[in-house]
Amino acid sequence: MNPRFLPLKVKNTSQKPPNKVVTLTTDYGERDGFVGAVKGVLLSFCSETQLIDITHQISAFNVEEAAFVFYSAAPFFPKGTIHLVVVDPGVGGKRRPIAVRTTRGIYVGPDNGVFSWVYANEQKVEVLHLNQRRFFLKRVSATFHGRDLFASVVGYLLQGVSLEKMGTPIRDYVRFPISKVKRRGRSLKGAIIHVDHFGNAITNITEKDLQHLASPRRMTVRVGGIEIRGIQKTFSSVERMQPIVYIGGSGNLEIAIREGNAAQEIGVRLGDSINVETSPLFGVC
Amino acid sequence: MNPRFLPLKVKNTSQKPPNKVVTLTTDYGERDGFVGAVKGVLLSFCSETQLIDITHQISAFNVEEAAFVFYSAAPFFPKGTIHLVVVDPGVGGKRRPIAVRTTRGIYVGPDNGVFSWVYANEQKVEVLHLNQRRFFLKRVSATFHGRDLFASVVGYLLQGVSLEKMGTPIRDYVRFPISKVKRRGRSLKGAIIHVDHFGNAITNITEKDLQHLASPRRMTVRVGGIEIRGIQKTFSSVERMQPIVYIGGSGNLEIAIREGNAAQEIGVRLGDSINVETSPLFGVC
Amino acid sequence: MNPRFLPLKVKNTSQKPPNKVVTLTTDYGERDGFVGAVKGVLLSFCSETQLIDITHQISAFNVEEAAFVFYSAAPFFPKGTIHLVVVDPGVGGKRRPIAVRTTRGIYVGPDNGVFSWVYANEQKVEVLHLNQRRFFLKRVSATFHGRDLFASVVGYLLQGVSLEKMGTPIRDYVRFPISKVKRRGRSLKGAIIHVDHFGNAITNITEKDLQHLASPRRMTVRVGGIEIRGIQKTFSSVERMQPIVYIGGSGNLEIAIREGNAAQEIGVRLGDSINVETSPLFGVC
Repeated sequence: MNPRFLPLKVKNTSQKPPNKVVTLTTDYGERDGFVGAVKGVLLSFCSETQLIDITHQISAFNVEEAAFVFYSAAPFFPKGTIHLVVVDPGVGGKRRPIAVRTTRGIYVGPDNGVFSWVYANEQKVEVLHLNQRRFFLKRVSATFHGRDLFASVVGYLLQGVSLEKMGTPIRDYVRFPISKVKRRGRSLKGAIIHVDHFGNAITNITEKDLQHLASPRRMTVRVGGIEIRGIQKTFSSVERMQPIVYIGGSGNLEIAIREGNAAQEIGVRLGDSINVETSPLFGVC
Repeated sequence: MNPRFLPLKVKNTSQKPPNKVVTLTTDYGERDGFVGAVKGVLLSFCSETQLIDITHQISAFNVEEAAFVFYSAAPFFPKGTIHLVVVDPGVGGKRRPIAVRTTRGIYVGPDNGVFSWVYANEQKVEVLHLNQRRFFLKRVSATFHGRDLFASVVGYLLQGVSLEKMGTPIRDYVRFPISKVKRRGRSLKGAIIHVDHFGNAITNITEKDLQHLASPRRMTVRVGGIEIRGIQKTFSSVERMQPIVYIGGSGNLEIAIREGNAAQEIGVRLGDSINVETSPLFGVC
Repeated sequence: MNPRFLPLKVKNTSQKPPNKVVTLTTDYGERDGFVGAVKGVLLSFCSETQLIDITHQISAFNVEEAAFVFYSAAPFFPKGTIHLVVVDPGVGGKRRPIAVRTTRGIYVGPDNGVFSWVYANEQKVEVLHLNQRRFFLKRVSATFHGRDLFASVVGYLLQGVSLEKMGTPIRDYVRFPISKVKRRGRSLKGAIIHVDHFGNAITNITEKDLQHLASPRRMTVRVGGIEIRGIQKTFSSVERMQPIVYIGGSGNLEIAIREGNAAQEIGVRLGDSINVETSPLFGVC
C-alpha cells in the first residue's frame, strides 16, 4: 500500500480502547451460518466489539487473493485494530495458527502466507505460533478453526489477555514473494495481481516504479493483446467505453474501460503480464 | 416514501448523539477491499460509529437505481443519520462532491442526481459544495473519492465539525425528474421503477394516485402483455404462482407472482409501462 | 447443534445488558433497501444495538433452509441475544407473528416452523403470539412485516418492554420434524440437510449416532452413487480433490471434496439419502 494514501492522523475521540475494532476476511461466503457463528463467539467475549466485514467472498481456498484483498483495506483502519483472516485450505492439518503484531495492528489467522503483504509493508513484525489450547473453545472441530480457534483467540485479546500468553515467537513463518516488477532499460514488465468487482485490472507496478521512466503521456502500455497510449489522471480523460491506464486507489497502475468492464471487454485476467514502455519521441508535442 | 410508513416516534434511550449512525450505499460490490477501506477511514475518525450497509450491489455506475434503493431505506433511520451514497461514474472529473442537509439527516456523495428522491421528499433542503480540501485525506486518488474524500468529510462530521466549514451553499445541484404518473379520465399510466430481489416490480403509482379512481376490486392492470384484475391487500388473496397487484411496502403499486418471480415469469422489466384502468361495471357484485 | 461446540463460558466485560445484540436472517437479498429499512427501524428504537447479519441469502420463501442456517450460528451468540428471522411466504395472511423465549435467547418471526430447531434443542421454550398492534409501526403494510411488525417488536424489547405485554402464550405453534436417522443393525440411513457455500454436504447424522457403530476407519459411506471408505478427522487425511467424510463444525457427518466442491463434482444435493455401514472385517489392520 502506498503510505501516502493512509488516513490523516486523527485524534481518537472515543472513550474505548481502539482495539475493540475487529475486521473479518474469509472465503466462507454469505449464504451459511459460518460468519454468524464466528461473530457470535467474538460477541460472547465482548458484546461491544466493532465488527467490520472486509469480505467473505474470497475464492474458496485462494490464499493469495485473500492476502491482497484484505491488505487493500487493512492499512486504513485505526491503530490497534485486530484483523482476522481465515482462508485456510490446511485447516486441521499441520499448518500453524499464528498471530502477527506490528506497529499498526494485530493479524490473526493460519500460517499459510496470507499475511505476506503485512510482512512486506509493516514495521516491527512479531509472529507468534498460537499453541496454547486453553485459549481455544473447549472443543475444536477439525474443520472450523475460524470459529473454534481463531475467534476465541481474538476474543481473549479483546478481553485484554496478552498475546505472549497465547503463543510462542517464531521466525520461520510462511510468506510468498510479493511479485516484483522487472525493469529493462526504459521499460517495465509487471503482472495483474487482482481483477476487481468493476472488472478493473490492478497491476503490481506502483507509481514509484514509473517515476524515473518518462512523462506519463509518453508511456505505452501493452496488456491482453492491446496497446494503450498514455497514463491518465482521471477516468474523464477518455471517452466512455474506451480503455484507460491510470494510478488507482491503491497507488498501483490499473487498466480499466471507462464506465465499462475491462475483464470482460479486453479479457484481462489475474496473472497476465503487462509491459510499460517509453514511446519514441516522434509525435510528442 | 409514504410518510405513513415511517417508524413511530420513539424516545431515543441512547446516551450518544444520534448522529453516530452512518449508512453506506455504493456500487463497489463485496468482493474487494473498497467498502472495508471506506469503513476503516470512518472508524479512524470515530471508532464507535454505527455503520450500516444499505447495499453495495447497485449496478455499476447506475445513479438512478442508487437514488431509489437507498431512499427506500433512508427514511426509516433515526433523525440525524448520515447517509453516504457513492455511485460515481464521474469520479475525478468535474462533478462536484456535495452534502445535503434536511430536517431528517445529512446526505453525502457526488452531485449527479443520486439525491433526487431526497430533494423531492424532504423539507428545508440545503446543499453544499464540499470544496475545502483540508477535510479530505492528505492525498486524494483520482478514482476512489469514496475513501479519500467522502469518508473523510463524514469522519469530520462525526467529530462535530460543522458542514458550513466544509463547503459552500449551492442551488444548481443536479436532480433528475422522479417519473410521474399520467392520468387520463379514469385510467393511469405509470412505469416500473425498480425490480427487487424477489422479482417483484415496483411502479411509480402510489396509493394516493389510486384513491379517486375506483374500488380496488374494479381496477384492471395491464403490464408486460398480461392483464391482472383487481388490486389485492395480501399475497394470500391469490393462489400460489398466480400474478398479483397490491400496494407494497413503499406505498407504491407492485406486481408480483405469489411465491414466484414476476421478473422471470411475466418478464416485467425496469422502465416497462403499466396501465391501471377501471373495469366496466358488468360482473361486479 | 452439538452443545460441546458452544463457546466457553466467558465473563461479560461489557457495561451494557447483553440483550443489545440482535441477529438478522432473511430471504431479502442484499440488492434492495429491505434490510436497511429493518435496521433503520431497530436503530430508531435504540441506536446502540449491535446488529449482526447471519444471512440474507436464504432461498426465497424457503423456511426449512432458514431454520437450519440461522440455527447453525445462533447458539454461539451470548445469552439474551435477540434473533430476528423473517422468511415469511405467508406474510399478510393468517400465519401468526410470534416470539419464542428460551434460556438462551429470544427469537422473533413468523409462526411457520422456522424455529423448529429451537424447539428441538432448547430448554424452557415459551411461545407468544404477538397480537398487540400498539407495538407495531403505526401503519403495517401487508407485505413487509419484517420492517413494520417484527422490527418494531424487537425495538420495544430493546427498550425494555416485557414480552408478556406484547403477546399471549400459545402451545399450538407450527413445527416441522427435524429429520431423523434410521438405524438398521450396524448401519444408518440419513439425509443431506444442507449444502454449504463450499459445496460440502451436511447430513442429519451426528457424531453421537455413530458412536456405537464401529471404529471410524471401518465405516463405509454411500452417497450420490459413490462409496467412500472411512471417516476421517481432518481434510489433510486425503489427497487434494479426493472425497472425504468427516464430522463437521456443526457436529454432523459431512461429505466434501478436499479443496474442491462436492456438490458440483459428486453431485450431492439437498434431500439425498446417505448410508453408513460397517465394513466387513477383511483388510483391517
